[in-house]
Amino acid sequence: MQLGVCYYPEHWPRERWPQDARDMFEAGIRVVRIGEFAWSRLEPRSGELRFEWLDEAVEVLARAGLKIVMGTPTATPPKWLVDAHPEILAVDEHGQVRGYGSRRHYCFSSPVYRTQSERIVRLMGERYATHPAIMAWQTDNEYGCHDTILSYSRAARAGFPEWLEQRYGSVEALNEAWGAVFWSLEVTAFSQVEAPVGTVTEPHPAIVLDYRRFCSDMVVEYNRLQVQTLRDSGVNVDIVHNFMGLFTEFDHFDVARDLDIASWDSYPLGFLERGAHPEATKAFYRQQGHPDFAGFHHDLYRAMCKGRWWVMEQQPGPVNWAISNAAPLPGMVRLWSHEAFAHGAEVVSYFRWRQAPFAQEQMHAGLLRPDGSPASAWPELLQVRDELARLSAEGLSGREIETEQAPVALMFDYASIWACQIQPHAEDFDALELHLSWYTALRRLGLDIDIVSPRDDVSGYPFVVLPCQVIADDALAARLSAARDSGSRIVIGARSGSRTPDFQIPDQLAPGALGELAGVTVDRVDGLRPGACPGVTTANGHHGHALRWRDLLDSTRTTARVVTRFDDGEAALTERAGVSYLTAWLEEDTLMAVLVEECRKAAILTTALPEGVRLRCRGNLVFAFNYAPEPRWLPEGLVPEDGWICGGQQLAPAGVSIWRMA
Amino acid sequence: MQLGVCYYPEHWPRERWPQDARDMFEAGIRVVRIGEFAWSRLEPRSGELRFEWLDEAVEVLARAGLKIVMGTPTATPPKWLVDAHPEILAVDEHGQVRGYGSRRHYCFSSPVYRTQSERIVRLMGERYATHPAIMAWQTDNEYGCHDTILSYSRAARAGFPEWLEQRYGSVEALNEAWGAVFWSLEVTAFSQVEAPVGTVTEPHPAIVLDYRRFCSDMVVEYNRLQVQTLRDSGVNVDIVHNFMGLFTEFDHFDVARDLDIASWDSYPLGFLERGAHPEATKAFYRQQGHPDFAGFHHDLYRAMCKGRWWVMEQQPGPVNWAISNAAPLPGMVRLWSHEAFAHGAEVVSYFRWRQAPFAQEQMHAGLLRPDGSPASAWPELLQVRDELARLSAEGLSGREIETEQAPVALMFDYASIWACQIQPHAEDFDALELHLSWYTALRRLGLDIDIVSPRDDVSGYPFVVLPCQVIADDALAARLSAARDSGSRIVIGARSGSRTPDFQIPDQLAPGALGELAGVTVDRVDGLRPGACPGVTTANGHHGHALRWRDLLDSTRTTARVVTRFDDGEAALTERAGVSYLTAWLEEDTLMAVLVEECRKAAILTTALPEGVRLRCRGNLVFAFNYAPEPRWLPEGLVPEDGWICGGQQLAPAGVSIWRMA
Amino acid sequence: MQLGVCYYPEHWPRERWPQDARDMFEAGIRVVRIGEFAWSRLEPRSGELRFEWLDEAVEVLARAGLKIVMGTPTATPPKWLVDAHPEILAVDEHGQVRGYGSRRHYCFSSPVYRTQSERIVRLMGERYATHPAIMAWQTDNEYGCHDTILSYSRAARAGFPEWLEQRYGSVEALNEAWGAVFWSLEVTAFSQVEAPVGTVTEPHPAIVLDYRRFCSDMVVEYNRLQVQTLRDSGVNVDIVHNFMGLFTEFDHFDVARDLDIASWDSYPLGFLERGAHPEATKAFYRQQGHPDFAGFHHDLYRAMCKGRWWVMEQQPGPVNWAISNAAPLPGMVRLWSHEAFAHGAEVVSYFRWRQAPFAQEQMHAGLLRPDGSPASAWPELLQVRDELARLSAEGLSGREIETEQAPVALMFDYASIWACQIQPHAEDFDALELHLSWYTALRRLGLDIDIVSPRDDVSGYPFVVLPCQVIADDALAARLSAARDSGSRIVIGARSGSRTPDFQIPDQLAPGALGELAGVTVDRVDGLRPGACPGVTTANGHHGHALRWRDLLDSTRTTARVVTRFDDGEAALTERAGVSYLTAWLEEDTLMAVLVEECRKAAILTTALPEGVRLRCRGNLVFAFNYAPEPRWLPEGLVPEDGWICGGQQLAPAGVSIWRMA
Repeated sequence: MQLGVCYYPEHWPRERWPQDARDMFEAGIRVVRIGEFAWSRLEPRSGELRFEWLDEAVEVLARAGLKIVMGTPTATPPKWLVDAHPEILAVDEHGQVRGYGSRRHYCFSSPVYRTQSERIVRLMGERYATHPAIMAWQTDNEYGCHDTILSYSRAARAGFPEWLEQRYGSVEALNEAWGAVFWSLEVTAFSQVEAPVGTVTEPHPAIVLDYRRFCSDMVVEYNRLQVQTLRDSGVNVDIVHNFMGLFTEFDHFDVARDLDIASWDSYPLGFLERGAHPEATKAFYRQQGHPDFAGFHHDLYRAMCKGRWWVMEQQPGPVNWAISNAAPLPGMVRLWSHEAFAHGAEVVSYFRWRQAPFAQEQMHAGLLRPDGSPASAWPELLQVRDELARLSAEGLSGREIETEQAPVALMFDYASIWACQIQPHAEDFDALELHLSWYTALRRLGLDIDIVSPRDDVSGYPFVVLPCQVIADDALAARLSAARDSGSRIVIGARSGSRTPDFQIPDQLAPGALGELAGVTVDRVDGLRPGACPGVTTANGHHGHALRWRDLLDSTRTTARVVTRFDDGEAALTERAGVSYLTAWLEEDTLMAVLVEECRKAAILTTALPEGVRLRCRGNLVFAFNYAPEPRWLPEGLVPEDGWICGGQQLAPAGVSIWRMA
Repeated sequence: MQLGVCYYPEHWPRERWPQDARDMFEAGIRVVRIGEFAWSRLEPRSGELRFEWLDEAVEVLARAGLKIVMGTPTATPPKWLVDAHPEILAVDEHGQVRGYGSRRHYCFSSPVYRTQSERIVRLMGERYATHPAIMAWQTDNEYGCHDTILSYSRAARAGFPEWLEQRYGSVEALNEAWGAVFWSLEVTAFSQVEAPVGTVTEPHPAIVLDYRRFCSDMVVEYNRLQVQTLRDSGVNVDIVHNFMGLFTEFDHFDVARDLDIASWDSYPLGFLERGAHPEATKAFYRQQGHPDFAGFHHDLYRAMCKGRWWVMEQQPGPVNWAISNAAPLPGMVRLWSHEAFAHGAEVVSYFRWRQAPFAQEQMHAGLLRPDGSPASAWPELLQVRDELARLSAEGLSGREIETEQAPVALMFDYASIWACQIQPHAEDFDALELHLSWYTALRRLGLDIDIVSPRDDVSGYPFVVLPCQVIADDALAARLSAARDSGSRIVIGARSGSRTPDFQIPDQLAPGALGELAGVTVDRVDGLRPGACPGVTTANGHHGHALRWRDLLDSTRTTARVVTRFDDGEAALTERAGVSYLTAWLEEDTLMAVLVEECRKAAILTTALPEGVRLRCRGNLVFAFNYAPEPRWLPEGLVPEDGWICGGQQLAPAGVSIWRMA
Repeated sequence: MQLGVCYYPEHWPRERWPQDARDMFEAGIRVVRIGEFAWSRLEPRSGELRFEWLDEAVEVLARAGLKIVMGTPTATPPKWLVDAHPEILAVDEHGQVRGYGSRRHYCFSSPVYRTQSERIVRLMGERYATHPAIMAWQTDNEYGCHDTILSYSRAARAGFPEWLEQRYGSVEALNEAWGAVFWSLEVTAFSQVEAPVGTVTEPHPAIVLDYRRFCSDMVVEYNRLQVQTLRDSGVNVDIVHNFMGLFTEFDHFDVARDLDIASWDSYPLGFLERGAHPEATKAFYRQQGHPDFAGFHHDLYRAMCKGRWWVMEQQPGPVNWAISNAAPLPGMVRLWSHEAFAHGAEVVSYFRWRQAPFAQEQMHAGLLRPDGSPASAWPELLQVRDELARLSAEGLSGREIETEQAPVALMFDYASIWACQIQPHAEDFDALELHLSWYTALRRLGLDIDIVSPRDDVSGYPFVVLPCQVIADDALAARLSAARDSGSRIVIGARSGSRTPDFQIPDQLAPGALGELAGVTVDRVDGLRPGACPGVTTANGHHGHALRWRDLLDSTRTTARVVTRFDDGEAALTERAGVSYLTAWLEEDTLMAVLVEECRKAAILTTALPEGVRLRCRGNLVFAFNYAPEPRWLPEGLVPEDGWICGGQQLAPAGVSIWRMA
């Protein structure tokens, strides 16, 4: 458990560097990320290399006792490169070039840019591979930020047919898999296939899904190129990438397979505005962020690299990029830091050391203000430093979290989210939002969660939930059956199994491959417009409503027992041999009522937490966090007789309590 | 009165075709439409013709006793054709090509595409013209779907000046008719005229109106080319096209002049979301559709081909293309079917036989589910089959409806709708919505309606309404005067006559050519923003409000008697010699109160129907339909002593009652 | 104080001109603007000049005793010119050419268009320079209308690097001023700089600010070219341009330096819809316009040319271009006319003489209707004519207003408004709206206001307010200090001084150069989302809220006294030696409560006016205007014992009262 910071020596006079390094160390910081936007300083003209300043910066930091994460600078190709190779730029869905002038102005498919990236990465790798102060490398920065995954550049349009040929082998197989006969979209050569963009009306959904897979694979290839280049250059330390929040445009599991550590950039306030929460929720959590935003991503990215993960960028004050940028409630920077460690982070690194007085992020706070004086997060940083020392005394300092398992596995699948975006069928059907809603319902019950990929073995989890596993195949069904047979209780959400991997309705109708397991067949779907909310009373007496989506079951083909029915008689929840099927998107409270009952059947203890309070266990410690802007009290059942390390039963706004489990 | 279905043999294995054909016949289906999206199967490569499978499909259907509607496949040109002739693609108002990858990817103006269309239509015509099972041909599919009427392709830009030269003869006449001197838009050669698109601020309205006429005429020419090619190929049976709901982008009266039968595609649920109804209305009718959606279009398209019309595509379950796609209330498929026949349909054909498990419409229900088992509409289909047999016994089986006339004529003019789109002048002034509002107000009074073109003779109708006949000329005024003199009562709505056909304010000010007839002159217009609603009390005591638009009359030039005034003293309704002028867009209930009184003066009996109930007479039968999701009772005055053929005074949700008139 | 009108002889038959001229004169009109859209009539083909009709129009008007404002016709280049030089067209931010077909289809940067403009202006200048009836010239028409300031044409993209080289001298200075090192945006040659458009995410704010300055300077250069050409052609009379309402896209102070008179086009109803007012306000003032819309612009444009200003286009009835176009309340045309004179206008000119029956503005009212008969404003015009005669007897007929000074100076800076648009940081942070809110708060207190530029000396004003002077430098601080030292009381609003002219956070943190004067330092900013409204009680007991923005002060560096605190303890208002700093955007009523107290300290008398009532002094006359649609009474303290020239204590809806000060 270490503290880190993101630092841009190129933004400040060299004379200041030693003081910055000393101040960092004294504040408890041990890890410094540098370099990731510095290409124009490293190579101001093509081939004119200027690494000396970076050499010096590395030395200054190293001498101060700091370890370095070296970023490759490929997120910001300099102007001379763009002028020499304008074809590296991505192209949007309107055919417009996404131009130079900010960052991420490149297309992942571009062969020229891959060559240029390999060149600069190799130069950096060769120069710094063996430097003892460098503890890790970061590839690029925030792949996909600013909607840069989907590109329709010439390179991407040329690459897609090749990718398809790899996948399908023959045009006959392609036409068959897609059902291209519909609307006469059959082709007689791969070269006839076009990117699914700019069509008169909606493009063919199977082609869109494949285009998204193709674009995701381009990121995988691009990242792998950087990783391999670093390895070829002699880099032996960990390689990491910093992923983002609420971002599903590529398959992060696929990219992460080439990394040693997954990290992510945690901006709870900025992302609150982007979330799908009601206005009242956004107002309530304006200065704190949603209580499950950070936790969800901690759990998601912990799933990527066998449990090894960091927070690479932690918001230390107001950011600049949300529509309205709030100042955090005092204490939140401390809370966010502890929460990351509670979920298993190895490093929490703040973004950034000192606020820049210029450019796009001049309103983005740092640990220091633009004039170099301490900013509002500074005292919280020092408090975290001191508290970490106390936790260390409790034995919490390594990677022990990777070996622990939460009681609940929540399945998360990028392709299923894409499928719902491609054909939402009902207004506001956002599958990511639905997953977050299940996550929140379970977390409000005090549960720790492991997020799992559909390719993971889930045997051993007492409770497995699939909020919206749209795409299912027999292999998944077999793994789930095995888990069920080994004692897992499974809850499958509406729309699951409704598509084959080829984006077709399965022969056996929804839930397709999962149908035998669940014992249900979906007859048809009722897309619920806003205001259309069928009522339901759960088995434990909660009355609530469905929203947006309801599967109507074919009773003649449903072998499962109907546990709960909607007021109009349609099935809401079925059960068959430890597997439940929930037919609708439910209001969060109603979903929670269903899950309480399912947990009871799975013999998992739950505790309804006060609004804004979350728990998380790590090792034998329990952490409690209060996201509410008001004091909260921990439920009596949770309060230990002793063992308090920090805080107590009462949680102040932004309060943190930590205690040893009895 | 026959039942039909849309069928895609190319989507299914040949082995299945005979069973499908048998099942259709047994379910009472006699008409099968095929072929209209099959170009890539008929001609997978340029010139490589593969008609054998279609030959076989025709034979299989014919052998089962089914009649065939053969569709020309021009709505989906295959990829090889687009690659060879990319100039066939339409271009949108931003200059972007509307690309291949869905359907309708062609510009009506394209000479190359006309040549290609003629070629494939001729090939089909020559092959099947004399086949005895083919009862009709459908040209293309849903002209204009996905906003494809207005195109700014090179061909369209080149064609517009030629069209203008035909219309105006000289640039002097053009400049004069347009008032092009304004903002120095005068030209000295037709070739200088540009399509009215991409301008710095709004383009010249008269040019826009002409561009819309030009684009409408391109559809007329394109359809005529198909019709003539079929006739040249020896086709002697009826030729039909399937028009759409809520679609006014071309003048359907003009296109229909070349057809034998007008048909339309009826999707009451999908279009509910697109309509301008309040949220509460949309929620109430979520699973039924608006009670006047189908009726309005039945009456509109009955006006096209001397009373001959079909429903070519009837929604049989949830569709896929609305923002939220509801499952119909049980019974609605039956209701919609009977309602079409009540309004005079010759054929009601369901879309589609079997739900496709792939492609864009995989969530569009069919009569069968994707696995071939019966879908939810199946029992309703069988019920309709049986009920039609009973109605046939009542003598209702042919084309007798074309000779009947409703008591009310409602004038509908595409160019007037365009004029309001071009210069709305007040927020949300949607002339189509206004026409629908008048239609609804009259239908809630139990009245049957004939929709008429402004070129029609309306003498003989006791009651004629012009909700918003913006464009008027002396010939129209003369026809209306003749009707008035022959006893018709006429109600003219606000904004009528406010423009000449050249999109100018008439010399005599609004209502222009209709001014003498109405006896009013409009001084100026008050565009009513949302929330600005002048109050009015009707002659029969209803108090309500104006919305969006109010003509303020020039009292010094108004010779008509002011029957009703707004609370602020401005005239609301005037009358002169059997002609009334309504100065404002009124709330629907208020409009209904005005029309009740007008009907009384026209000696037409009205009955205020319960919410959601509609009536329609055909021959000596009366049909009642309940669109409400709750039971309704027919008003006592309507209930016959006997003569019930189906149902009774009480109408269940989605209920239908039919009785013989005394 | 003269009345004028805009006239288009080219729209009407020559035979009508003499009658129009006579009617104008009889109605009291003495000034007629002509010519500004007539290029296609003056030069229908390249080089084919047709000035005879304009000669005749000038003679007809002159003979009737009318003075002429001659407009240069450059706002509407004719088609032959566009065909010959399509590169004159502007290009929008999506790279789309902004095409011919309406007006203003040219880019201010285009060298070709400058040459063509100079040619036609010279031809007009040479022909009419010495005509005795021509009292003034108008350059072009409404620079920037329809968002035409920002263009990304080839000419603009080529001109920007040149402009930058002028400004910065070296790329090193440029990189330093911008902080271009951020995201590797450094350049090594000016030619590498691109216009800040089409970037992947937000472009660099300093580059955007410079691009806006560059585009503003292009307007300055273009206007200067016209002015110099007219002078070279022998024009000796006043040169004017007609600016617009709510328009800040170029620096009007800069353009006005080359003009003799500033004028603007006053459309209170059309602009009401574009304003940021609540729906209830828009409904209340629907037919009158917001009570401060006209006054604010009168005061703003009075600041441009040493007090000389006109209303060039005064709305006389409904306009055509708002989303909903209301008919003015009877009396408003008279009210707007008197209000302009009360604020110091030399001329109030109506747009337009006669409503055109054709083209884009056919729904725009004139003094006459399309058929030439008097429109609704006519009797109000005659009343104004007669009342002006009476005012003239009171000695109010010249330019005396330019020598008077209001008690309040309100600072207005175009670059500061741009800065907030470039980085709003909080939703709905619209700096123009904020300035209007301060203006309204002060006007509701009965105060006259002078708007001043940040380059103006404000010594001598008892009260100076800077609502949002984002960009500040030492020179401004020095002028304000001098004013304070000479007795001015100063109120500085939140966000002021937060940026250097290079768009950087100042070294001393916000309010930067103004920090010493105000005695405060801003620690960080809290962007207030909708619904987040910290409460505050003002010194005089009013409780209200902040909206959108709150500066959180660094108490350790704040030397000013905190006068008022928010409920949560944060500083709301500070004071130090006659300078107050307001830390937040306040609700208007709350702001008014703060300003009442500040005025009291500045020894300025205030009077809270009834809703919708405004006052304005000119010379020894006081004017009162009632914008409410209901009667109002002047507060007792204002009512004179005698001296009524017009009206009295009671103001009818749209009422005007005028009296002599005691």
